Amino acid sequence: MHIEHIERMESPQTTMLKQEQMTTSDFTRSDTRISELLNYLQEIEDLKALGDLADWDQNTAMPNGATAIRGKQMATLRGLLHERWASPQLGNMLVALCDDVQQNAFTDADRGLVRKAQREYEQGTKLPRSLVEEMTRTGFDSFEAWRRARKQNDFATFAPWLKRTVSLQREVADLLGYTETRYDALLDNYEPGLTASKVDALFAPVRDISKNMLQRIKASGNTIDDTCLQGDFSTEKQLSLSEKILRAMGYDFDRGQLAQSPHPFTTSFGSPFDVRVTTRIDNHLLQPALMASIHEGGHALYEQGSSATLVRTPIAGGASMGAHESQSRMWENAIGRSLPFWQSHFALVQETFPAEFAQVDPTTFARALNKVQLNDSLIRVEADEVTYNLHIIIRFELEKMLVNGDVAVESLPRLWNEKYQEYLGVTPPTDADGVMQDMHWTFGFGYFPTYTLGNLYGAQILHKLYTVFPDFDEKLAQGNTAFVHDWMREHMYSVGAIYLPETLIERITGEKPNSRYFEQYLTSKFETLYNLPR
Amino acid sequence: MHIEHIERMESPQTTMLKQEQMTTSDFTRSDTRISELLNYLQEIEDLKALGDLADWDQNTAMPNGATAIRGKQMATLRGLLHERWASPQLGNMLVALCDDVQQNAFTDADRGLVRKAQREYEQGTKLPRSLVEEMTRTGFDSFEAWRRARKQNDFATFAPWLKRTVSLQREVADLLGYTETRYDALLDNYEPGLTASKVDALFAPVRDISKNMLQRIKASGNTIDDTCLQGDFSTEKQLSLSEKILRAMGYDFDRGQLAQSPHPFTTSFGSPFDVRVTTRIDNHLLQPALMASIHEGGHALYEQGSSATLVRTPIAGGASMGAHESQSRMWENAIGRSLPFWQSHFALVQETFPAEFAQVDPTTFARALNKVQLNDSLIRVEADEVTYNLHIIIRFELEKMLVNGDVAVESLPRLWNEKYQEYLGVTPPTDADGVMQDMHWTFGFGYFPTYTLGNLYGAQILHKLYTVFPDFDEKLAQGNTAFVHDWMREHMYSVGAIYLPETLIERITGEKPNSRYFEQYLTSKFETLYNLPR
Repeated sequence: MHIEHIERMESPQTTMLKQEQMTTSDFTRSDTRISELLNYLQEIEDLKALGDLADWDQNTAMPNGATAIRGKQMATLRGLLHERWASPQLGNMLVALCDDVQQNAFTDADRGLVRKAQREYEQGTKLPRSLVEEMTRTGFDSFEAWRRARKQNDFATFAPWLKRTVSLQREVADLLGYTETRYDALLDNYEPGLTASKVDALFAPVRDISKNMLQRIKASGNTIDDTCLQGDFSTEKQLSLSEKILRAMGYDFDRGQLAQSPHPFTTSFGSPFDVRVTTRIDNHLLQPALMASIHEGGHALYEQGSSATLVRTPIAGGASMGAHESQSRMWENAIGRSLPFWQSHFALVQETFPAEFAQVDPTTFARALNKVQLNDSLIRVEADEVTYNLHIIIRFELEKMLVNGDVAVESLPRLWNEKYQEYLGVTPPTDADGVMQDMHWTFGFGYFPTYTLGNLYGAQILHKLYTVFPDFDEKLAQGNTAFVHDWMREHMYSVGAIYLPETLIERITGEKPNSRYFEQYLTSKFETLYNLPR
Repeated sequence: MHIEHIERMESPQTTMLKQEQMTTSDFTRSDTRISELLNYLQEIEDLKALGDLADWDQNTAMPNGATAIRGKQMATLRGLLHERWASPQLGNMLVALCDDVQQNAFTDADRGLVRKAQREYEQGTKLPRSLVEEMTRTGFDSFEAWRRARKQNDFATFAPWLKRTVSLQREVADLLGYTETRYDALLDNYEPGLTASKVDALFAPVRDISKNMLQRIKASGNTIDDTCLQGDFSTEKQLSLSEKILRAMGYDFDRGQLAQSPHPFTTSFGSPFDVRVTTRIDNHLLQPALMASIHEGGHALYEQGSSATLVRTPIAGGASMGAHESQSRMWENAIGRSLPFWQSHFALVQETFPAEFAQVDPTTFARALNKVQLNDSLIRVEADEVTYNLHIIIRFELEKMLVNGDVAVESLPRLWNEKYQEYLGVTPPTDADGVMQDMHWTFGFGYFPTYTLGNLYGAQILHKLYTVFPDFDEKLAQGNTAFVHDWMREHMYSVGAIYLPETLIERITGEKPNSRYFEQYLTSKFETLYNLPR
């Protein structure tokens, strides 16, 4: 608008893209069709990044009065992106390339790029723009209805919106197509290649081990004291602690930033060069900000580790929601709640809050971070590692039924409460704290399973890390996190979304995704923590 | 990327667009061609707003490592916008509408919209995308060269870039076309309808009065003491003071935000709903942050006052650079450096810095803000009101010569120094503090005159305000700023860029833009401040 603004717009590009030596993530740019496709996709990614930036702004800075205008701006951008993904021009580029790219002359990166582009093109052409727009509108309205209904604990007023979402999601699934069940089409949206039957097989043992572990801990009568996490913690100091911990994990602030938001999240506007995280602050509890920062830090390391050769393509960054969650939850739970990590990093807590933690030792602190909610695990986002997956499994079971048409929306509250009693031994006192506790069902289905999938992937990767580094705990206790970060970057982060998640996990661990390592991890960790008879 | 992110994306639109009762700023939406044009332009504005947001982010939050990738994203967006402005689809929409819109059935808003669209379309079609891209690239490189050259006080290494810019700007001017001189085509870019001969006529008396006033003050031997503005002022408290003053001016934080940046600026992502300002902090001087905040606040009131009916159109917000500068400088200088304003608002300074200002009174404070640099007005951005326009006039004279081909780039440093000696009685000790002090010439010419033009417009509007409100000073001294803000909104801010700046000033003040009121303002203000013999 005036000169100072222009001045900054013209500021120079001083940072050069780092060239890496990774053949798997190099594109065959000498091939005209690959370079043409790259040019086309880079523009899409540039525009998408500006939209993601607007989301970040909406959550960290945007004034309230801008909500409506921002909604319109985002609708325009989404419409434009849909148009580009569905364009005949893209279709023509892909028609022969889809087969040809399988030849040896092409790289894994080429194949990943073409696969991803083909997938987006198909989705774009299968879903008409009008349906995409209606889903966006319904999502906004449903969210608003859910918020009001939850506040007034009145499921009946939310039910019509939920019915509409079920109906739209069924329409989407039918348009996208599926082999086994309609629900598969939605799952595939978040975790490419995933089906309900695969999830069933993976989740069954998780359900059993979780219920069993909960029973064993209850039966033992042993408890964990977490009072050391309570106190009076200023926002400024909590942010400072989060920053220190993020640095300790290897998060690069020269390509990132930490901000505050009501719901913590990670976002990227061009991985690996601009990856930002937020945390939320509770001034009376240390755990929420600390664990949210480590969780988001895990997401962020993944994005910051993406090879620079993949920048501005749709295969930069994470391979899937599940793959992403594997890293956030591995860093949060397996590292960020471990005794070795706090043996070396508890000093950061003490130096930030000297008065509060002078009398606390790392063991007490790390134990407190792992307290299991034995009879009151009611809210998913506050759940411990033992009960967390049961929350997910309940949702998975219910939304399968909804999408496949096996259950009426009206009976959801009853079914929800029955399952909570069965799996977690607790009956929600209200629907607000029961069936309406999450906002996910305001926009669709198929997302929840990726959380538990992330836990399984994470444990499987962790096991591999322990195999590669038999002195994993010792290194961690010495304050070393770089060995994890480096290994993960080399074997997982750098290849972005070149591979489908199932292939990726197999490449990293040598095995297809399975639940064994999570079962072992959970059993071993909580037997020790709660001193259970074995 | 993961659910928390999606959750926020789906947040509801709670703010409704406020409908105003202003016929001049209503579009004839019932006319198919107008509504079609609006639809087309709204998409452009939505995309532009996302780009402006990215600029804001770049200046207030973006990590350094993201510079290169952000450059690419912005290039993509600018290319897309250029394409849309130059599209035959837009041309077809406008072809008959340009004439038809002059009929009585249409409103001033319709006419403003079509005029602006036609102008952008013409510019878009006249300037090939390759030239726009080359200008962007050269701008980046030239900026980098200027920064290095300035640091090393080495004009010779900047000269080739400046030559390239002169050459490109001449090419642009020739493509855009002009009636009198080539320079007019560039002026018109920033101030539609302006020509060098109009500027000559407006600036001649300003040059004389400024030089004369400077001589009179020097001759009087009177001085102003500004030591009360020096001290130790924390960033946090300065930001808090800026916020209080912005609120006092009527800046709406529900549709805005204050942030920090190296160079203060105002920006809007959809006026009047999201208008943000930044300020810069000097921890040893109070004046920079305070006056920058009021200056940017003036820009922001203008944008926030734009009628809601104009939202998402290219005629929302300011009419021109000069019109904008009239408001920033009117609020900064005529109000923000006035005794009446500080009589009612000095308490805010005292409550923020009780120790530093306990012994200072409003008169001393307001006087200090107006100190004239009698023998050392070397740097434009630090100049007082008496010398400021002389800095601008020097630049105007030099860039006219450059663009019209009357002078070689090599002789610029000599000419610059001669003019500084002649107008301001000072010879720059180095080219870094002389001909290379501003970055403007790294991207082009024609911008500088709008600063002084803003001062003239501002004084002319201020005179009108004093006519409408004979008790202007008394109201201000009572802490009332709303009467200014309300009147300005009604007569200027709300109509956005519906009218060309010259027409707008005439509508507001009843007279064509002229320099008389500025001459009166400057004479009267500084005769009083410096107690000059009359």
